[in-house]
Amino acid sequence: MFSGAQISLYPMADDFVGVIMSALSALAPYRERLRIETDDVSTLLVGPPEVLFPAMRDLFSAAAGTGVHCVLSAAISRGCPGEPDDAICQSTHFEGPSAPLAERHADALAAVRGAPVLDVFSVAQFSLYVMGSGSHMDEIYGCIDFLKQSGTFEKSKHFATKLSGDTGVLFATLEQAFCRFGPPEGHVTIDLTASANSPSAR
Amino acid sequence: MFSGAQISLYPMADDFVGVIMSALSALAPYRERLRIETDDVSTLLVGPPEVLFPAMRDLFSAAAGTGVHCVLSAAISRGCPGEPDDAICQSTHFEGPSAPLAERHADALAAVRGAPVLDVFSVAQFSLYVMGSGSHMDEIYGCIDFLKQSGTFEKSKHFATKLSGDTGVLFATLEQAFCRFGPPEGHVTIDLTASANSPSAR
Repeated sequence: MFSGAQISLYPMADDFVGVIMSALSALAPYRERLRIETDDVSTLLVGPPEVLFPAMRDLFSAAAGTGVHCVLSAAISRGCPGEPDDAICQSTHFEGPSAPLAERHADALAAVRGAPVLDVFSVAQFSLYVMGSGSHMDEIYGCIDFLKQSGTFEKSKHFATKLSGDTGVLFATLEQAFCRFGPPEGHVTIDLTASANSPSAR
Repeated sequence: MFSGAQISLYPMADDFVGVIMSALSALAPYRERLRIETDDVSTLLVGPPEVLFPAMRDLFSAAAGTGVHCVLSAAISRGCPGEPDDAICQSTHFEGPSAPLAERHADALAAVRGAPVLDVFSVAQFSLYVMGSGSHMDEIYGCIDFLKQSGTFEKSKHFATKLSGDTGVLFATLEQAFCRFGPPEGHVTIDLTASANSPSAR
């Protein structure tokens, strides 16, 4: 199943190019397992979720660690019917038959409890879109239940859910939401905004 | 039908707060026709597409006009089944029965030809998501045909389509894509990135 993201990093600083170039070194450990293409709007990362989410996490954490207000914006997708499959996307997330919702819920919580803590605080606002028909509302509500128990749930907003907490836990939570809800072979997307060091009061 | 967007403006400058505060005056003509709520991640705009898209256009143009590299990111949504209707969202876009695809295509092109030209160049990358079943792939392909004839089509990318041109024409194109494709009462969303003044070569 084809999976990946179009990502953009926005440091709110005159030296935004410097912050971005410096943060890119955080992608080094992942480069062999991702296809990466950049233009003036976004960088394409093609690869399995278990590589994609840690790569986005480490890129964002590196930029956030400078103390500059910065945002990672990403359009994350799996199973788009218009995209050809790619061997680099082979993922352990979607092997075997789909487990019952309650079991996936429990597995997602366990994965979040085992997430690395990076000691970088951030917020993540996102929308999960499950395309196609069938039981997709059950899946959405199952995902929301998981998010509320994940330890990072901050609030529901119109069109989106807002999480906050340690960046390592946040990206683990996002990976679980993306992989464990919606049909294993279905078309699922996330519209993500991760933000750190905002001067606005929360 | 409930419609609106969660939007964020990212000026890549030390004085990002000043650029944002100054650009916000561009929303003044629209404030009475929108519900607006802001937190540390995004600003919610609730209102009909014919107000929403010009408001986003003018906010973004005002920031872009400073010459600073800036990005407007938006999660735009209509017809989400989890959102209650709101009188402020009453739109002329969705009155009457849905016309045949060819007719909507022609109407969309006519609307784009009549769009105001702002003399601010920008690029817009977006994904259109049509939730639910039925003829949604016909609608997506119909929308892509329209985009290719809109005069702003730059290229297809994985997960997204990239447009470029005058900001007035771009936002008119986005409004038409959002309103004229997908079921009139359906759940349709756009994940938008509009960018201006990037130092990266295109």
